[in-house]
Amino acid sequence: MTDENSLRHRFRSVRSLSETLCEPLHPDDYGLQAMPDASPAKWHLAHTTWFFETFVLLPYLRGYQVYHPRFHDLFNSYYQSVGSPFTRSRRGLLSRPTSTEIYAYRAHVDRRMNDLLTEPAGDAALRLIELGLHHEQQHQELILTDIKYNLSCNPMKPAWRERVAGNTRKGPAQVTDRKWLGFDSGVHWIGADQEDFSFDNEEPRHRVWLDRFEIASAPVTCGEYLQFVEAGGYHKHEYWLSEGWDLLQQRLPGEQTREEPLYWLPNGAKGQLYTLNGVRPMALDEPVVHLSYFEADAYAKWASARLPTEAEWEVAARALSGAAHDGPFLEDEIDHPVAGASSMLGNVWEWTSSAYLPYPGFQPLRGAIGEYNGKFMCNQFVLRGGSFATPRGHIRASYRNFFPPAARWQFTGLRLARCV
Amino acid sequence: MTDENSLRHRFRSVRSLSETLCEPLHPDDYGLQAMPDASPAKWHLAHTTWFFETFVLLPYLRGYQVYHPRFHDLFNSYYQSVGSPFTRSRRGLLSRPTSTEIYAYRAHVDRRMNDLLTEPAGDAALRLIELGLHHEQQHQELILTDIKYNLSCNPMKPAWRERVAGNTRKGPAQVTDRKWLGFDSGVHWIGADQEDFSFDNEEPRHRVWLDRFEIASAPVTCGEYLQFVEAGGYHKHEYWLSEGWDLLQQRLPGEQTREEPLYWLPNGAKGQLYTLNGVRPMALDEPVVHLSYFEADAYAKWASARLPTEAEWEVAARALSGAAHDGPFLEDEIDHPVAGASSMLGNVWEWTSSAYLPYPGFQPLRGAIGEYNGKFMCNQFVLRGGSFATPRGHIRASYRNFFPPAARWQFTGLRLARCV
Amino acid sequence: MTDENSLRHRFRSVRSLSETLCEPLHPDDYGLQAMPDASPAKWHLAHTTWFFETFVLLPYLRGYQVYHPRFHDLFNSYYQSVGSPFTRSRRGLLSRPTSTEIYAYRAHVDRRMNDLLTEPAGDAALRLIELGLHHEQQHQELILTDIKYNLSCNPMKPAWRERVAGNTRKGPAQVTDRKWLGFDSGVHWIGADQEDFSFDNEEPRHRVWLDRFEIASAPVTCGEYLQFVEAGGYHKHEYWLSEGWDLLQQRLPGEQTREEPLYWLPNGAKGQLYTLNGVRPMALDEPVVHLSYFEADAYAKWASARLPTEAEWEVAARALSGAAHDGPFLEDEIDHPVAGASSMLGNVWEWTSSAYLPYPGFQPLRGAIGEYNGKFMCNQFVLRGGSFATPRGHIRASYRNFFPPAARWQFTGLRLARCV
Amino acid sequence: MTDENSLRHRFRSVRSLSETLCEPLHPDDYGLQAMPDASPAKWHLAHTTWFFETFVLLPYLRGYQVYHPRFHDLFNSYYQSVGSPFTRSRRGLLSRPTSTEIYAYRAHVDRRMNDLLTEPAGDAALRLIELGLHHEQQHQELILTDIKYNLSCNPMKPAWRERVAGNTRKGPAQVTDRKWLGFDSGVHWIGADQEDFSFDNEEPRHRVWLDRFEIASAPVTCGEYLQFVEAGGYHKHEYWLSEGWDLLQQRLPGEQTREEPLYWLPNGAKGQLYTLNGVRPMALDEPVVHLSYFEADAYAKWASARLPTEAEWEVAARALSGAAHDGPFLEDEIDHPVAGASSMLGNVWEWTSSAYLPYPGFQPLRGAIGEYNGKFMCNQFVLRGGSFATPRGHIRASYRNFFPPAARWQFTGLRLARCV
Repeated sequence: MTDENSLRHRFRSVRSLSETLCEPLHPDDYGLQAMPDASPAKWHLAHTTWFFETFVLLPYLRGYQVYHPRFHDLFNSYYQSVGSPFTRSRRGLLSRPTSTEIYAYRAHVDRRMNDLLTEPAGDAALRLIELGLHHEQQHQELILTDIKYNLSCNPMKPAWRERVAGNTRKGPAQVTDRKWLGFDSGVHWIGADQEDFSFDNEEPRHRVWLDRFEIASAPVTCGEYLQFVEAGGYHKHEYWLSEGWDLLQQRLPGEQTREEPLYWLPNGAKGQLYTLNGVRPMALDEPVVHLSYFEADAYAKWASARLPTEAEWEVAARALSGAAHDGPFLEDEIDHPVAGASSMLGNVWEWTSSAYLPYPGFQPLRGAIGEYNGKFMCNQFVLRGGSFATPRGHIRASYRNFFPPAARWQFTGLRLARCV
Repeated sequence: MTDENSLRHRFRSVRSLSETLCEPLHPDDYGLQAMPDASPAKWHLAHTTWFFETFVLLPYLRGYQVYHPRFHDLFNSYYQSVGSPFTRSRRGLLSRPTSTEIYAYRAHVDRRMNDLLTEPAGDAALRLIELGLHHEQQHQELILTDIKYNLSCNPMKPAWRERVAGNTRKGPAQVTDRKWLGFDSGVHWIGADQEDFSFDNEEPRHRVWLDRFEIASAPVTCGEYLQFVEAGGYHKHEYWLSEGWDLLQQRLPGEQTREEPLYWLPNGAKGQLYTLNGVRPMALDEPVVHLSYFEADAYAKWASARLPTEAEWEVAARALSGAAHDGPFLEDEIDHPVAGASSMLGNVWEWTSSAYLPYPGFQPLRGAIGEYNGKFMCNQFVLRGGSFATPRGHIRASYRNFFPPAARWQFTGLRLARCV
Repeated sequence: MTDENSLRHRFRSVRSLSETLCEPLHPDDYGLQAMPDASPAKWHLAHTTWFFETFVLLPYLRGYQVYHPRFHDLFNSYYQSVGSPFTRSRRGLLSRPTSTEIYAYRAHVDRRMNDLLTEPAGDAALRLIELGLHHEQQHQELILTDIKYNLSCNPMKPAWRERVAGNTRKGPAQVTDRKWLGFDSGVHWIGADQEDFSFDNEEPRHRVWLDRFEIASAPVTCGEYLQFVEAGGYHKHEYWLSEGWDLLQQRLPGEQTREEPLYWLPNGAKGQLYTLNGVRPMALDEPVVHLSYFEADAYAKWASARLPTEAEWEVAARALSGAAHDGPFLEDEIDHPVAGASSMLGNVWEWTSSAYLPYPGFQPLRGAIGEYNGKFMCNQFVLRGGSFATPRGHIRASYRNFFPPAARWQFTGLRLARCV
Repeated sequence: MTDENSLRHRFRSVRSLSETLCEPLHPDDYGLQAMPDASPAKWHLAHTTWFFETFVLLPYLRGYQVYHPRFHDLFNSYYQSVGSPFTRSRRGLLSRPTSTEIYAYRAHVDRRMNDLLTEPAGDAALRLIELGLHHEQQHQELILTDIKYNLSCNPMKPAWRERVAGNTRKGPAQVTDRKWLGFDSGVHWIGADQEDFSFDNEEPRHRVWLDRFEIASAPVTCGEYLQFVEAGGYHKHEYWLSEGWDLLQQRLPGEQTREEPLYWLPNGAKGQLYTLNGVRPMALDEPVVHLSYFEADAYAKWASARLPTEAEWEVAARALSGAAHDGPFLEDEIDHPVAGASSMLGNVWEWTSSAYLPYPGFQPLRGAIGEYNGKFMCNQFVLRGGSFATPRGHIRASYRNFFPPAARWQFTGLRLARCV
């Protein structure tokens, strides 16, 4: 199913992109962890390497010796089957191995993976390498979301990097008018078709009944969300789920006030935004991003609409997406969602109203790899579509991302839907 | 739709049952609150009364004066639209009004409700009275679950009441063999049909696609669950959702160990069980109860099966339930689920694998009453079928109960399902 | 050292006063515990009984059988040597034994103590009975402080009892002018002299060097403290210990704001005060009470003075106290500190600047009784002098009470001192 | 009082030592903060610089412009009078300024301090420079204690630096036999005499009465403490203060078990010790270190002795210390307390039984500098004598260090005393 030569090339290119993303960092930045969810950049670099070492090299490269005995637990994220993962919230305490040592670890594993890839590999190994590459691509987006959060806690609000010149608008053509796009009721197929790579949670492909619905042709913008803020939306309990309302009543020490999206500078009226390029004025036509599920859901209620279910979203995406409409993606070197894009794939993740649960007949992968997705099917909501920070080849219409409803540090926005 | 005469009679009978349930209590017991979720008995007595005063008497009985100005906030549970509810976790601090004073409050409201019910009432009022009665029935089950939890924290393990003589087996005929009952794939209708009373969250009636499935003819027993415990089920991460596994690793001060269902006395091998009648030996053929969603789900995985979705459950219940098979219910004065019952309605609540979410086209009721159900649609799972502590007229195939996945103090068991 | 006849009389009178204090309570009030520190009234009644049962009846009354096997742990406060004390913060969950059952327990133990006291008892037993009586007197004051706190958490602010008619001013003659009373430098003796009863922490009597100092002839009043509040004292860090300042920046859920003494109704300008007789206007000339150490210390700094050390306080008290000047005490049936009293013994506890530490050569009592005082000598400050809620015979110049610096629910005020 | 020339020299030498201590660090190590108390090395480097900039350059160097406007709050530790200190527990999140930028900040301030020191400075400025140097010396010891703690949380247990060759024993001559040294009762003077530099908390010099006492000629060793551990000392409540005992019953996630001193590797029998030079076998004759006050106090009780008061300690130190007996100190480049030293100054800090309170007549310095010591006089105990990590010129017999009783990450041991 995969040609080793091109696989070797893809391997090199994926692995190298992770390091490129870290180039703008100072050595001081590599270890930052401002909350348990936001892992240090160096940890991502090591963990993705550990994945190949543990699941590919050790079982499939004859005579492979483990690079460092302590790395086995230190860089295990959550796989109970293969050891005792180091406590997640304490990853920021691992000043050693240094980032230099982690780059050496990467280089070593890359060399041995190259050795493995020069010889014909069995299907099992190839499937794991493929999985490892998608795993690393997932972490590429996390490297950006986590760096952004970790740097944002510094009152000096440092940028990850300066804006790449000329990259202001790499999105598709402008949408001037948003439209409601209608879909008929009936039985639809959703889920991955197994021809191309997919994660286990996208399978099996199966039927769902959908009532008639409409979905917006573009996501909600900052300007629209600002109207909700200015209409007192954060002070009207009727728009909010109970758990979201309770969160609003709390004040966390050292946390920004919660009456606007994350990274809007306090007092949104000032219209300043913290981005990966530092603080800049907010544009009213750019998509709103860094919303919790609670905020997305409250906005939708205020707008007399609702979030789409993940099945509705997927049916719409299959109808609407295509190379011409998609993007921007990580390779476009845009550092924030762009205005004017109506793409369902790329630009900004979209909250759906679906809880993250197994599809009918879902079977996790066998072995430790089966811990990848299935054990998190509880108290999370599904996000669809990827963002400007998602690698181009990593996203598809059936892709299911998931976060707890309070999470805001991902590039999460929304697209409205409604019953008709 | 409702005849006032019979409504007056039902009103009296429902209201009186709440007080009957509290008869075995000492004055000292009425105020107990051992955790935020387990409200004091006297609070339940007052809150259900407040519901009628606030939503029926004040708007619909001309000239009605509020009984006590402070009760308005003290006995508001969570309705933000009608005031500032008193902090839930501090309900146990309300020694005043005393239980005697609360009984006087009940008597006053009952008298004025009787006044209202002697004259013809409009549809809006009748609907609210109906809702208030179902609301009070819900709290009747909560009175028992909360009393059980609150008394259980006393090392002396006092009983709520002695076993009612002769009431050991009021369930339907014995089931000797459990069978798998099969259902074909296709489009099914689920949800309430609006002919009889239902809560807003059971509507609208709508279509779902279901793949073929089988469901067990009876719930899982203590003996079966004990096998899971003895097979080390609580120590094998592969059966557990990540969040459930993390909970198992914690030890809460003052809490029973978590390696068996709630109310199994520590070290399950001893086979002692705390019930509403005090401590007694566990019977292997009685249904297991007081499981969290995590435990129910882990057991199902260990048994190479799964939990049913709520749609599957409802389709099966519509096919299988009927007066002959249902029960036991609260009126049967059984104080614990009975062995040998295969009923889908009554005996023991059953966890489903469905997150508690709005049905397509869901609209909450208008006004404060709309806070009843909709705002909790997040991070909870659906339970179906009612228990021995549910009033007989209160449960139906479309009824959706919901609790967070870690909750164990309700009478929650499980019935297995599987794909075919 | 003690005559049994009069001891029997004192025993009866002390034991009976505890019950008198609880007479105004409803059954609903007996079990209230609004914070771990504020034990339920019924727990106090049981624990003081347990003390006599455990330390006197079991070792010294031949053939005495334990009254109830579970009471041994349930009513043990903190004596690790004699079992596993029930978790302090969960005492409010003990609805059983009911208060009726606890009164029966008291009656039983009182009868058996009477049996013991009708025969000649050895010195060891007599010393323990004496200790038990002082222990119960200590709990009498705690019954009042805890009831006050526990009732105060109810928004209806119920009174413990109505004011006893004619008891407004049982204090000594008015003080119109407060004076500074001077003491010379030199070596002084402090501590108990062992002629009368004292706790182990008051011994041994020993010498201290004191520099010249002056102490105020009366405690600080509400009017004076109000000036500090109105001068913005709670917003000026320079008056506050760092730990106290940090506490002020916190807001505890369900807690009154912290910018005035406990029990001043929010927004002190309104001048309302919660007392054991309910809410009433504050009098400017009554002593300020329910201060934390942090508040007392901050006030003293604002007033260009300081708190006395416990040695200074004791030297002054020995010079100044005497029946004519002391009081009011618990037997006076005053329910709040009175204005115009300059007494060092009675009326209001006074914070000293001394940490609670062992005197040179301190030896705790042998056995479990040795846990009474010594193990708390850490992170607490010494209070001196007793209050209107202290039994008359229970207080003396050498008496050392102690609380953590943040505690405010005791009847704690202050008297200024200064260097000269 | 100070000659500018030698002051300039001392300034350079003190400032340079701070940087020398950080030389063994990787860039990744500079920002580590494993608990709120253990600040990052780079923060110490910046804060000590901020101290000179804020309290010396800004007021006393004409035309001095602040180096960077954000540093003012970022590197303020706790001085409320001069701004809003950045949250202590979040110092580890300041990846920017980078350590390179902080070294540049240091260089800039050092240059401008040199400018200031080339001209005659007034007494006020000289006193503040002197204070700033002692302040920086204090932070030199903290740099080591904090680095040790922060590195110790890494399961790889990295060393700060390799042992400096030949530095195993720079302490004074061996003590083979420990003796009890006796002191007579009477009035003694303690406190600083104001001839040399001292902190405000060492003043005023004043009289205390001391009863006869004896003090040990050398601190407690690891071998002796091991006997206490092996005798089950951590499981016998009778040796422990109540608060310390409660701490022992807790298990903090990610924390070493608490049944031996901090940095003894779990299961002390194995006899491995984490030190600034990494893990090595424990020597039985080296002083025990990293004890909490609770542990020191429990050990003393087990050994039928007690801790000295700070007055006793100071009286003994004045009699016993002297260049010949003191040390080792920071300049000796020993990285752990040495065996065989009986010195009261140097080697290991010694817990006293005295709470940290103001001396009679204590006056904090005027202005922000007055926040240095006085506001912490609550819930801390006094430590005396300095350690191997204290700069030689920084310690004296009257020096009062202070930590909360649970603190263990400092180089804290004990010396026994007893009454006679």
